[in-house]
Amino acid sequence: MNNVTMKDIAEMAGVSKATVSMVMNKKDASISEVTRKKILKIAKEMSYIPNSIARSLSTKKSGTIGIILPDITNPFFSEMVRAIEDKAERLEYNLIICNTDNDIEKEQKYIELLISKLIDGIIFMSGGKSNESITILKNNNVPFVLVDRYIEGYKDDYGVFCLNKQGVIDGVQYLYEKGNRKIVFVKGREDIEISKQRLEGYIDAMKNYGIYDEKYIFEGDFNVEGGIIATKKIISCFQDLDAIFYSNDMMALGGMKILLRNDYKIPRDISIIGFDNIHISEIIEPELTTISQPIYMMGKKACSILIDVINGELLTEKQVYFKTELIIRGTT
Amino acid sequence: MNNVTMKDIAEMAGVSKATVSMVMNKKDASISEVTRKKILKIAKEMSYIPNSIARSLSTKKSGTIGIILPDITNPFFSEMVRAIEDKAERLEYNLIICNTDNDIEKEQKYIELLISKLIDGIIFMSGGKSNESITILKNNNVPFVLVDRYIEGYKDDYGVFCLNKQGVIDGVQYLYEKGNRKIVFVKGREDIEISKQRLEGYIDAMKNYGIYDEKYIFEGDFNVEGGIIATKKIISCFQDLDAIFYSNDMMALGGMKILLRNDYKIPRDISIIGFDNIHISEIIEPELTTISQPIYMMGKKACSILIDVINGELLTEKQVYFKTELIIRGTT
Repeated sequence: MNNVTMKDIAEMAGVSKATVSMVMNKKDASISEVTRKKILKIAKEMSYIPNSIARSLSTKKSGTIGIILPDITNPFFSEMVRAIEDKAERLEYNLIICNTDNDIEKEQKYIELLISKLIDGIIFMSGGKSNESITILKNNNVPFVLVDRYIEGYKDDYGVFCLNKQGVIDGVQYLYEKGNRKIVFVKGREDIEISKQRLEGYIDAMKNYGIYDEKYIFEGDFNVEGGIIATKKIISCFQDLDAIFYSNDMMALGGMKILLRNDYKIPRDISIIGFDNIHISEIIEPELTTISQPIYMMGKKACSILIDVINGELLTEKQVYFKTELIIRGTT
Repeated sequence: MNNVTMKDIAEMAGVSKATVSMVMNKKDASISEVTRKKILKIAKEMSYIPNSIARSLSTKKSGTIGIILPDITNPFFSEMVRAIEDKAERLEYNLIICNTDNDIEKEQKYIELLISKLIDGIIFMSGGKSNESITILKNNNVPFVLVDRYIEGYKDDYGVFCLNKQGVIDGVQYLYEKGNRKIVFVKGREDIEISKQRLEGYIDAMKNYGIYDEKYIFEGDFNVEGGIIATKKIISCFQDLDAIFYSNDMMALGGMKILLRNDYKIPRDISIIGFDNIHISEIIEPELTTISQPIYMMGKKACSILIDVINGELLTEKQVYFKTELIIRGTT
C-alpha cells in the first residue's frame, strides 16, 4: 500500500510539508486563506486520508475490537455480529471477525493475533472451555465481554446473556398446558455451558409436572445437521411422541425437515419448538414456535459495555441477563 | 489496554530489557541457557505477546484486510465472508467487516476509515454505483478486489464474479423444456449491475423462445421482504402463471411463503426457481431449485487474489468468472 501522504500534497501544492501539516491539523492561524484552500482542495482531489496508526501507537488505542464466534454462517451469530457492528460503527470502532468452529485452540491463536495488533477489546462467544484464552486476555489487561456463551468460573467478568433455563421452563410449561406429555428434548453439546442451562430447564420443568423420563433426552450439535441426526434417532426410537423441544432453531429446522420427509404433519402429528428466534424461523412454513432471545439488543448491549470499559468507565453491573420470550407460531 | 511488555518480563526476571529483547528476537547467542529458559518461562506465564503495530508502521503492512458488503445477515454474504475469512486466517490475515446496507455514502465512510488504519487491501461487494469509493482506493493505491457485484467501468480491475446472464438463460431453458411458458421474472434493484445481467439473461432467453412479454417482469429488493412484496403484486395481476424466476434465493423464500399462504401447491400449481444456492435453499421444504453460484470458491479466490496483489505479485488474469450450475430440486 502506498497511501497519499502530506509530502505528496506539499509537492503538488508547492509548499512545505510543515505547511500542509498545519492545515491538516487545523493549526493554520499563520497560513493565508488562499494557501489553506489550495491545500484542502488538493488533499480532496488526491483523496488524502490521515493515517491513524502512528496515533494508535502512542495512545495504545486502535479503534478496533475483535469478535470471536463459532461460525458466521449460523444466522444466530450473523444477526449478533450485525447488531455489534451497527453499534461499533456509530462509536467509530471497526470490528474484526474470527470464526473458531468451537475449536479452543483456534480461539486462542486468534486471541494472541488480536492482542499483537493492539486490539482495544474483545467480544467473546466461546466455543467451550476457553479458560486459557481468558487467562491470556486477563494477563494482558485486554477488556472483554462474554456474550451468549457463559463460561463457568467467570461470574465477576463482563457478560451479556439470556435467561436460558427459564426460557426452556416457559416452553415446557406451554407444551404441557396444551396437553403434550411425551416431550423429547434435544440438548446441545455438553461442553457448552448454555447446553447445560437449557437442559436444566427441561429437567426441572418435566420433573415439576411429574412427566420426566431420561429416555426422552437426545443430543446434537447446534446446527441443522445436528437436528437432522438427532431426529432420525428419535423417530426410530419412538412412534408416539407429542412434541420435540430443540435447544436451538437451527436444530429445529433440521428436525422439521426429517419429520416432513417422513410424512409427519406439523403440528397435527407432532409439535415443534425451538430456541433463539432467528429470522429464518418465521420464513419457513409452518413458522416455528420458539423461545426468543433479544439477539439484536444483546449484541448492542455487549458492544456498548465493551466500549465503556475500553474508555475506562466503571460499570456497576458487570453481567446483564436478558429475559426470553415465548413466540407462538405454526408448529405448535 | 495495558499489554504485558518486555519491561514487565525484565522486572520479573531481574534482568535488563535488552536481555529480554535478545531472547524474544532469537538473537540470544550471548545469553546463558539458564537465563534464556527463565525468561521464556516467565513470558509464557505472563502471556507475553509481541506487539506488531510498531512493525506495521515501518513495513506499512497491517496484516488486516477489510470487507465491504451490504448485510452480513443475508446468508449469501455470510457464506462469502466465511470463505474469505477461512482463507485469510490461513495466510495470517485478519478480516474487518463493514455492513453498508447498499448505502453508497456509508461505503465511502468505511473505506476512508479503513485506509486511515493502513488496511492492506479491500474486498468490495458494492451496493451500487461506487465510483467515488473506488477513486479513493485508487488514489491511495489500496489493492482491492470486486466480488459478486460487478461495477460498470472497472473492467481492468481485479474482480471475481459469476456468469450471471448465462445462469439465468440456463434456468429459463430448463423451465421452457419442462413446458412452462408464462414465466414471471423478479429482477433486483436497477442500480445494481448484477440485476441488469440477470434480467438480460431472462429477456434474451424468453425472446429466443418467442415467449417474451414485458408484463411478466417485476422488481424487488434482494431479500425476503423484496420477494414477499413482489409476489403479492404478481398473484394479484395473474392467476394462470406457470413459473416464477426470482433473481436470488432470499427473494424466492419470501415468494414461496406468500404462495403457500395463498394455497398454491409448489410445484404442482406453479414452479419456482431462485439464484445463489445459499444453504437454506436445501433446508426448506420443498427444497428450492436454483442457479448455484460457487460462493465458497469465489470467496477463497477473491481472498487469494487480494493477498497476492498485496504481496506485489503480478497476476495475468485480473478478472475471474465462475460458471453457475442449475440445481434441480423440489420446487420445479
